[in-house]
Amino acid sequence: MRANYIENPVEWEEEFTFHIEVKVRFSETDMYGHLNNTIPFVYFEEARIEYLKHIGYYNWSSSDSEKIIVVADLQCDFLKQVYFDELLKIYVKAANVGTSSVDIHYLAKNEESETVFTGRGAVVQINKSTGKGTPWTEKEKLLLHGN
Amino acid sequence: MRANYIENPVEWEEEFTFHIEVKVRFSETDMYGHLNNTIPFVYFEEARIEYLKHIGYYNWSSSDSEKIIVVADLQCDFLKQVYFDELLKIYVKAANVGTSSVDIHYLAKNEESETVFTGRGAVVQINKSTGKGTPWTEKEKLLLHGN
Amino acid sequence: MRANYIENPVEWEEEFTFHIEVKVRFSETDMYGHLNNTIPFVYFEEARIEYLKHIGYYNWSSSDSEKIIVVADLQCDFLKQVYFDELLKIYVKAANVGTSSVDIHYLAKNEESETVFTGRGAVVQINKSTGKGTPWTEKEKLLLHGN
Amino acid sequence: MRANYIENPVEWEEEFTFHIEVKVRFSETDMYGHLNNTIPFVYFEEARIEYLKHIGYYNWSSSDSEKIIVVADLQCDFLKQVYFDELLKIYVKAANVGTSSVDIHYLAKNEESETVFTGRGAVVQINKSTGKGTPWTEKEKLLLHGN
Repeated sequence: MRANYIENPVEWEEEFTFHIEVKVRFSETDMYGHLNNTIPFVYFEEARIEYLKHIGYYNWSSSDSEKIIVVADLQCDFLKQVYFDELLKIYVKAANVGTSSVDIHYLAKNEESETVFTGRGAVVQINKSTGKGTPWTEKEKLLLHGN
Repeated sequence: MRANYIENPVEWEEEFTFHIEVKVRFSETDMYGHLNNTIPFVYFEEARIEYLKHIGYYNWSSSDSEKIIVVADLQCDFLKQVYFDELLKIYVKAANVGTSSVDIHYLAKNEESETVFTGRGAVVQINKSTGKGTPWTEKEKLLLHGN
Repeated sequence: MRANYIENPVEWEEEFTFHIEVKVRFSETDMYGHLNNTIPFVYFEEARIEYLKHIGYYNWSSSDSEKIIVVADLQCDFLKQVYFDELLKIYVKAANVGTSSVDIHYLAKNEESETVFTGRGAVVQINKSTGKGTPWTEKEKLLLHGN
Repeated sequence: MRANYIENPVEWEEEFTFHIEVKVRFSETDMYGHLNNTIPFVYFEEARIEYLKHIGYYNWSSSDSEKIIVVADLQCDFLKQVYFDELLKIYVKAANVGTSSVDIHYLAKNEESETVFTGRGAVVQINKSTGKGTPWTEKEKLLLHGN
């Protein structure tokens, strides 16, 4: 069984070139002894922001920016239990670039290179004042396409 | 635009009969001034557990139970920004009952009865020792079907 | 053994007249099966804000307020383990009112009326633009003194 | 103003020899734009566990251990606002070793080497089955004393 956002698993995995590392905190486990199911979304957010900084999309220090990125939807498929103190690699890539949105995909691997969870979610660039979607510039589109 | 797990929005909404209330905590907001996008999954977990208690599925106090419920996947569609101190109703229902799994749907409304986010996710009943899926009993199936 | 901010335990407890209720979420437990030790501070924040609204200190909906409350220090003494699904009463009171600060005390009781944790912490009223402490008005002092 | 657990600030600071690094996550900020005041306790827990692993106190992978460490109290003094994406060094040391407890101190510095918050808290070694305090062995005492 694979998630419907993964057409060809081998290709899908090969397209990831960027990742961050996270270590599972004690406070992120729950009484079942596993990583609580709400925490992958915390990792996704951290990975997404680091990815957007990495490709040069934006400069977090310029707080006067008119444009912000908001999350439109999120999903996560849990494949293998994750435990305290595991070191995970969270891979992230831009999958489909729209007019003012982009679909971001996620892949999490443990130290044995097993896939522990995957995910995706669209984010939209909006104007902070109006709350309306703001189209990507040509330069931003190139960055999201990996150029 | 609606999520692909909602066939008929009116019917989908009418089928919810159970909900919990949550109040957005200050610590659940982020620097954009909204409810952080990881928190709806915290609310979903609370709503799901209260729902399973409500239909009589299980007794949390019996810690010796061999069977536990784990999350297979989760998704959330964010429709409207949510702010600090808002009182939300989180509706929850069992949508499709499988052999040892069930698809749980979620609907969150603000005090103006606006839908602020929706979601779904499959949970699976597993045996705590073996980690394998454990089929619902006939009685459990009836509970999940609302009888 | 009692915390150094509690002079006379009986009197200290009797002075609390306001509380909120919180139910321990599954996601707030950790792999030891208890409420994780970082969560009481989440409850303290919720209780503190509800208390400040209760005494009429401020109106959260007026986002243009120049004055905000920030936390100067926090402490918590853990007396008894807390478990998933417990319903706690979080009592809160203003203990010592300074020029622009106030010491807030906290007391958490479980359903058997046992004290599970206590705490305290100073908060300071500052000017949002300058970041400097802003003295309480006479009216605010009266509110904090319970008049 | 300094916290009452710091007798001589210069000496106190010089005694720290171990630290971890944490990067402030977006989800750890709140609508005031700062690191939420509940999060330093998350960092303290991570730093404390890494410290205990570092000195060789215990082996987390041996889940059959009879002895666990629980938190008796915690406190934090907030000296300077912390913002999204800051890289913090969280220093940790064992300050006073008791029969079955130890006082752990914490110091957080930002990238400009400014102290942003400090803290302390006692932890107690207990027997998992009985819940009673379990005295440190001589070897454990040596480890906590840095030998």
